[in-house]
Amino acid sequence: MKARDVMASPPIVRPDAPAAEAARLLQNPEVRGLLVVDSEERLVGVLTDAMLLRYLLPPYVTEAESLAGVLEEGAAEALWRRLDGKRASDLLPEDRSGDAEVDAEDTLIEVASAMVEAHVPLVAVREGDHLVGAITLNALLKYLLES
Amino acid sequence: MKARDVMASPPIVRPDAPAAEAARLLQNPEVRGLLVVDSEERLVGVLTDAMLLRYLLPPYVTEAESLAGVLEEGAAEALWRRLDGKRASDLLPEDRSGDAEVDAEDTLIEVASAMVEAHVPLVAVREGDHLVGAITLNALLKYLLES
Repeated sequence: MKARDVMASPPIVRPDAPAAEAARLLQNPEVRGLLVVDSEERLVGVLTDAMLLRYLLPPYVTEAESLAGVLEEGAAEALWRRLDGKRASDLLPEDRSGDAEVDAEDTLIEVASAMVEAHVPLVAVREGDHLVGAITLNALLKYLLES
Repeated sequence: MKARDVMASPPIVRPDAPAAEAARLLQNPEVRGLLVVDSEERLVGVLTDAMLLRYLLPPYVTEAESLAGVLEEGAAEALWRRLDGKRASDLLPEDRSGDAEVDAEDTLIEVASAMVEAHVPLVAVREGDHLVGAITLNALLKYLLES
């Protein structure tokens, strides 16, 4: 079984799409990540719901967790405003690792390896110059453990 | 809004449950993580589907991704056998960070902070000596962005 046998239609956003649009897509519990793909079908990154959550938090909260307790409850409402004027690609962390992309002919073990290395629950599937699909962690586990 | 207002009934496994039982629970696409909880309601860890995938891969694949290509296709069938004789707690990585637990009175910002620090999509909710629920990343995003 190859990557092409497991892939599905990927949720895609353009790098310059509004960040709020990406956030709305990620609010769907079935969408754990989006492929951020430019107009020439190059993968800019995989944007996950965990990255969105991290982006939404004011920096000083992650830097000093103890500060979180003093934040007002209403601060949650300000989180949407943190996305104003931002683009989807702005939500990608700078320290992302690995290449979240596999070839359509790759084996499922190769797909699993790429996914683990990239620390994302979604990898893009490439065939030549084209992105032809994506494979989720859930789909991969299903096929790996049912084969 | 507090942690108690957002929590749901958590999927729980005992640390000494068979690893295959944990794996079957994690095959459900709606279950991204399990609370590993001992008989005295102490949280041993949060076991995610990503941790399961990482555990299933033979070590040399993650150590040298290029080796993945030479694995035979049938190797996937051997993955289940990697769980034989293992317990749920064996699947937890040794280098897990942060405390994936919040208090029922914590604010959603505090919950988000704990989740980001622990690098897991699920945190346990504690009230005194009892684990009373769990909060998923999806539920948290929903409430944070809808408030």
